[in-house]
Amino acid sequence: MDKNVRNRYTVGVLVSNEPGVLSRVSGLFSRRGFNIESLAVGPTQDQTISRITIVVLGNDSSIEQLVQQLYKLICVRKVRVYDPANTVERQLVMIKVAANASDREGLMRLVEIFKAKVVDVTRESLTLTITGDVEKVSAMVELMQDFGITEIVRTGTVALQRGNQIMNSEIFDL
Amino acid sequence: MDKNVRNRYTVGVLVSNEPGVLSRVSGLFSRRGFNIESLAVGPTQDQTISRITIVVLGNDSSIEQLVQQLYKLICVRKVRVYDPANTVERQLVMIKVAANASDREGLMRLVEIFKAKVVDVTRESLTLTITGDVEKVSAMVELMQDFGITEIVRTGTVALQRGNQIMNSEIFDL
Repeated sequence: MDKNVRNRYTVGVLVSNEPGVLSRVSGLFSRRGFNIESLAVGPTQDQTISRITIVVLGNDSSIEQLVQQLYKLICVRKVRVYDPANTVERQLVMIKVAANASDREGLMRLVEIFKAKVVDVTRESLTLTITGDVEKVSAMVELMQDFGITEIVRTGTVALQRGNQIMNSEIFDL
Repeated sequence: MDKNVRNRYTVGVLVSNEPGVLSRVSGLFSRRGFNIESLAVGPTQDQTISRITIVVLGNDSSIEQLVQQLYKLICVRKVRVYDPANTVERQLVMIKVAANASDREGLMRLVEIFKAKVVDVTRESLTLTITGDVEKVSAMVELMQDFGITEIVRTGTVALQRGNQIMNSEIFDL
């Protein structure tokens, strides 16, 4: 593979739930020259562990180095670079769109097609949520631009492996 | 209000989309003693701007100081502490649950009640997504624990103000 090709990688990181962890992990990405496209962090079923999901551009060898660097951080328990063929990825987007009464019909057709949800409505605007993989969400956002997006917030991507495989902080299986 | 009361605050931050921003912003939170409960960052409709949504515990005066400190970072364009009464908050959770054929019926009833979506299924497990506010999502997670959660990943909360109000990086309206 051409070393300069930049692909999109989704990386899962299990970390100790302690202050400063996120800054250390995201600092490592920026020091190594990775620009983080999206990042999501939240609690897990184990109160001592948080789970970070990061989407970055890179190539196979730079990502491999990144994983090795991540394991050098004491707070990092487990790292996984997801295989797209074997992974479910989802993100959530909330969009506020300019929509008066005459726009609303066309907009509601898109809402149905994309199974979006209307979470707030006024005379001049509609606020929607859409859940899906990055392609679906981006397609919806693209179409919404015709109406005029006044505000948008995206959660970033989260991912789990398909099937029974799990990422467990107790088992070292790099 | 008692200064020691710790409430949950959702903070939106518009930042320049450049390397190291996330590390600087999250580093400020940890230096000021805030433990980040969840954080989500993603692109906006303006390619030069990313939007970070952070949930932290604190009190009114500590949050006010935090906002002032955030504005001192050059990369920070706009900060908003959301008023819960006037805000739509959503998060997305993906859960893998141990579920053989006999568990599946009870599980599918919960899936219907919570309008969850099944995104993967094997003989021994079911992977679901749930979208909602933190209370709904936490209630679902709680009930899923009876079946046995083998893996969970949460996006963290994203938020938009209700109505026509928007948070715009061009207008300084603190």
